[in-house]
Amino acid sequence: MSMVALQSIDKADTAWVLVATAMVLMMTLPGLALFYAGLVRKKNVVNTLMSVFAIACVVTLLWFAVGYSLAFTAGSSWLGGLGRAGFAALRFDLQGGQLSVSHLAPHLPESAYAMFQLAFAIITTALLVGAVVERMRFTALLLFSALWCVLIYAPIAHWVWEPGGWLAQLGALDFAGGAVVHVNAGVAALVCAYILGPRHNYGREAFEPFSLGWSAMGAALLLFGWLGFNAGSALAADGRAALALAVTLVAAAAAGLSWMVVEWAVRGAPTLLGLLSGVLGGLVAITPAAGFVQVGSAALIGLAAGITCYWGATWLKRRLRADDSLDVFGVHGVGGVLGSVLTAVFADPVISGVHANLLSQVTAVAAVAAYSAAGTALLLLLVRLVMPLRVSAPVEQQGLDLAIHMERQH
Amino acid sequence: MSMVALQSIDKADTAWVLVATAMVLMMTLPGLALFYAGLVRKKNVVNTLMSVFAIACVVTLLWFAVGYSLAFTAGSSWLGGLGRAGFAALRFDLQGGQLSVSHLAPHLPESAYAMFQLAFAIITTALLVGAVVERMRFTALLLFSALWCVLIYAPIAHWVWEPGGWLAQLGALDFAGGAVVHVNAGVAALVCAYILGPRHNYGREAFEPFSLGWSAMGAALLLFGWLGFNAGSALAADGRAALALAVTLVAAAAAGLSWMVVEWAVRGAPTLLGLLSGVLGGLVAITPAAGFVQVGSAALIGLAAGITCYWGATWLKRRLRADDSLDVFGVHGVGGVLGSVLTAVFADPVISGVHANLLSQVTAVAAVAAYSAAGTALLLLLVRLVMPLRVSAPVEQQGLDLAIHMERQH
Amino acid sequence: MSMVALQSIDKADTAWVLVATAMVLMMTLPGLALFYAGLVRKKNVVNTLMSVFAIACVVTLLWFAVGYSLAFTAGSSWLGGLGRAGFAALRFDLQGGQLSVSHLAPHLPESAYAMFQLAFAIITTALLVGAVVERMRFTALLLFSALWCVLIYAPIAHWVWEPGGWLAQLGALDFAGGAVVHVNAGVAALVCAYILGPRHNYGREAFEPFSLGWSAMGAALLLFGWLGFNAGSALAADGRAALALAVTLVAAAAAGLSWMVVEWAVRGAPTLLGLLSGVLGGLVAITPAAGFVQVGSAALIGLAAGITCYWGATWLKRRLRADDSLDVFGVHGVGGVLGSVLTAVFADPVISGVHANLLSQVTAVAAVAAYSAAGTALLLLLVRLVMPLRVSAPVEQQGLDLAIHMERQH
Repeated sequence: MSMVALQSIDKADTAWVLVATAMVLMMTLPGLALFYAGLVRKKNVVNTLMSVFAIACVVTLLWFAVGYSLAFTAGSSWLGGLGRAGFAALRFDLQGGQLSVSHLAPHLPESAYAMFQLAFAIITTALLVGAVVERMRFTALLLFSALWCVLIYAPIAHWVWEPGGWLAQLGALDFAGGAVVHVNAGVAALVCAYILGPRHNYGREAFEPFSLGWSAMGAALLLFGWLGFNAGSALAADGRAALALAVTLVAAAAAGLSWMVVEWAVRGAPTLLGLLSGVLGGLVAITPAAGFVQVGSAALIGLAAGITCYWGATWLKRRLRADDSLDVFGVHGVGGVLGSVLTAVFADPVISGVHANLLSQVTAVAAVAAYSAAGTALLLLLVRLVMPLRVSAPVEQQGLDLAIHMERQH
Repeated sequence: MSMVALQSIDKADTAWVLVATAMVLMMTLPGLALFYAGLVRKKNVVNTLMSVFAIACVVTLLWFAVGYSLAFTAGSSWLGGLGRAGFAALRFDLQGGQLSVSHLAPHLPESAYAMFQLAFAIITTALLVGAVVERMRFTALLLFSALWCVLIYAPIAHWVWEPGGWLAQLGALDFAGGAVVHVNAGVAALVCAYILGPRHNYGREAFEPFSLGWSAMGAALLLFGWLGFNAGSALAADGRAALALAVTLVAAAAAGLSWMVVEWAVRGAPTLLGLLSGVLGGLVAITPAAGFVQVGSAALIGLAAGITCYWGATWLKRRLRADDSLDVFGVHGVGGVLGSVLTAVFADPVISGVHANLLSQVTAVAAVAAYSAAGTALLLLLVRLVMPLRVSAPVEQQGLDLAIHMERQH
Repeated sequence: MSMVALQSIDKADTAWVLVATAMVLMMTLPGLALFYAGLVRKKNVVNTLMSVFAIACVVTLLWFAVGYSLAFTAGSSWLGGLGRAGFAALRFDLQGGQLSVSHLAPHLPESAYAMFQLAFAIITTALLVGAVVERMRFTALLLFSALWCVLIYAPIAHWVWEPGGWLAQLGALDFAGGAVVHVNAGVAALVCAYILGPRHNYGREAFEPFSLGWSAMGAALLLFGWLGFNAGSALAADGRAALALAVTLVAAAAAGLSWMVVEWAVRGAPTLLGLLSGVLGGLVAITPAAGFVQVGSAALIGLAAGITCYWGATWLKRRLRADDSLDVFGVHGVGGVLGSVLTAVFADPVISGVHANLLSQVTAVAAVAAYSAAGTALLLLLVRLVMPLRVSAPVEQQGLDLAIHMERQH
């Protein structure tokens, strides 16, 4: 927003945010790609990996061109601002002794802050891949993702995280993206799954995951990056960042175990995929609460998340009758709603100086879900005017790897 | 231990310790899982991965509940303290302008310090998986691990690392866990292997490792995390951290090459697994010495470690007649003893201001080994009172993945 | 070069450089190994992985013994200095309150600076593996790499990066290794490919890559490490580091998409390998420019890099008729030349206070290419005097894994 003297930058905080950004961008992203690719069938592994990476490239360019400015410029409380072109705004002027900073983080170089926020935009958009794998056309996916990150993600980020945004004004708390990232992506994924329709033979034959080991490694990389999301959101290398990291670990551990135990009781076996899904559900649920709750509360949030997300990915999934192929709604949507609400229950004003408010939390979740659902549906229908959303039946049968990419995973 | 003003925290050091913690926790752990999973047979890959991850979850919760307090509270020189509940102790009070710190690192938020120490507790406990893979019951392993991290790991950490601990009082030096982590885990692993007994057909048929590539990647992630262990143990972003990182790299490189060359001479082929094992042996041996020795000494320590650990994983292993399946004792135990002793030989008081003492080092190694051996045996026998330690012979034959987890790796 | 007081070290910068070093060393390296191993045939996967890791060990020891001193000591403008033995130079003296620093980074512990530079030496040498895989003898490769990193890499690094080096004196700009790393490695790789000759049946049968998924993960880890290279080269946690990180991301994204689109237009399919190669080409091209250009310029550099490197790896490759097996020249050589030249076009003196000069850039590229080509050829012929460079035809047919290492990847 403005230029400040080079010396006014806090280098310790900058070091921390740069590392957190690198962790998030460069580990969460391949983590997600690997997690997803391990869960699809062998014939769609390349397409799944490539979808995540190509979306990352597209969102990166759009973010610096327009998305960041839309989301994080002061302007209308609904639509954000477009006063500054992103590319041009990130100034570092050694000769003049100045650099640009954002009004949201005046102690950091704006390019560091913009990149940290880019990481959220990429991962939220890429999460949707999990709902459309094995059947969506690659071109349609890229076009949809480009529109979605600018028209759905950026405004929602503005509502919640820019101080002038209307949900921020209402007092909604979302430390690292419970509503902005996870409710948003979860709901959009469900809409995508409905509009695309299920995969051929979904529910009739078992789809064998390509490699559980890949998914386990993917989940581990995701977790590494997630520490960057949650602890990096303190935007400082301070005690609150350390607390956010601690509550994230505790919630993830509690949720992994609670999903495992519930599944063990219900299905008779503790599964690796269940443990990993529980850990992810715990990460989702603690995300909005990370900088607001004590470590003990995090254990309770994690415990609840493991159980609730298990319910979301099994009972609720069957009821919804959508082929949300890799459980984006069941884990991210359900976990995001739970975490946003529990933030109001467990937030300790001693930590942050602010009081949470259940009504604001519920309003934020509802508004994000409604806008995300309606906007996602609209964009998909718009894309469908230009091109089919799904590959043809023979291509789906053959697998997207050979048909679209002329490549295959052995 | 006490509350200090928010401003008394050193943010550069905090940034460094938070990153080191993330590196260690989130890279060493999947690194170990991947390293181990690549070395077992295909039918036990899921079980191996899941054992490591589930142990991590269990130890995380127990650490904040009781382990951290036991290990790092001033109290009895033998048993540590239990004065503070871990969950409640990690306070961050923005309103009051205070946060809690440990007396061992008063310049860091206590939650950062507690998490850094958590990483050691997790990895030490998870190392034991390497001795019991392909045959231990999952439930028995979880129960044993829970007891072990609290009753074996935490007291030993207290003896060596809490200034009032009796081995610390004796002047034993252990920069990043040569005795606390590696001698401890190595000896416990050997005891586990004896008590569990060998895998069916061990020594009679060749067990084909599932994927050397996975193990190579696992070792690389382990190495990345290990830099966090060793350089993070300086608890500051200073010259000593940089030196610790340099000696760690040099020792790892020297040990990788020395194992490779010795194996090449003895067996006629330089193997990837040998190179990786050598690197791990070098890392183990430099761990107690990392903040006490010069770079030149690190090359010698590494050289010795590659040769000694090769001996430990071949000649000594045959003599011990235990099915320590993935050579936890041969690499971690032997390397840990070697490094702890060589710390006395090479420690340069110029670096740390303290003099090493061979007798103290040997006492520490012996005490840790004795307590770990006796305690591990006792706990295993205790668990055996409640449930069998091993899976049944048919389950072992079929593989633990399908039998226990109803999942499999393709 | 000299000893300074412990307090004169900037801890925030040190934290950042230590992390960048860890990222580069421990992620770029396995990233490269995995990227390469995924692209060779199954029978050579172990050899490919092991070559990269063994070279890393060899270069580490030689760097501390002699390479670092040669490259980064003031001395002759052509050959650098040998005044100080590396191992002995990295002093940390708590008792005397002093530690050693380099004249190139007097605010950092010298061991941090030396390790950061080590990362460049390792990766440049290891890049050459891509040109010789599947046929070079392991022993010959190790010997050649040892000579190459000392006699080719270290002098070139001195020319460009030590202020007294002759190319530095000419005003050549190379922020993070466009000429020193990529032109150097690319040209050397081409020479290696010519002298070794093509693989058996090269061009006659299709060589099926072992695992595109491995290569995708490898590329992702490479990218993570590359952020350390480029943003770490600011040697400070400041706005310029943040800018370097931003331009790196933008160039990589633009290049990934431009390669993908061009290949899509030419061959009719967007490929994962193409997207990844484009991303790598963009990273290469932005590397010399990273601390000198604005974000908008980075998008243009990336755009150009994707197209140019695609041309380099297809049309140009066919013309050159060398079996540069994994396109080291096509991506690193071509991208490095492009980036070094475009640095002159786009460098903004506002950022760095220095003006780029096209003639200096071209001179640097030409000098590096000429020295690298001649030196590499000479070293290879020298090694050939002692031992054959290639494995025998039967070994090549069988695969190097079983024949040399008595191991195999399943």
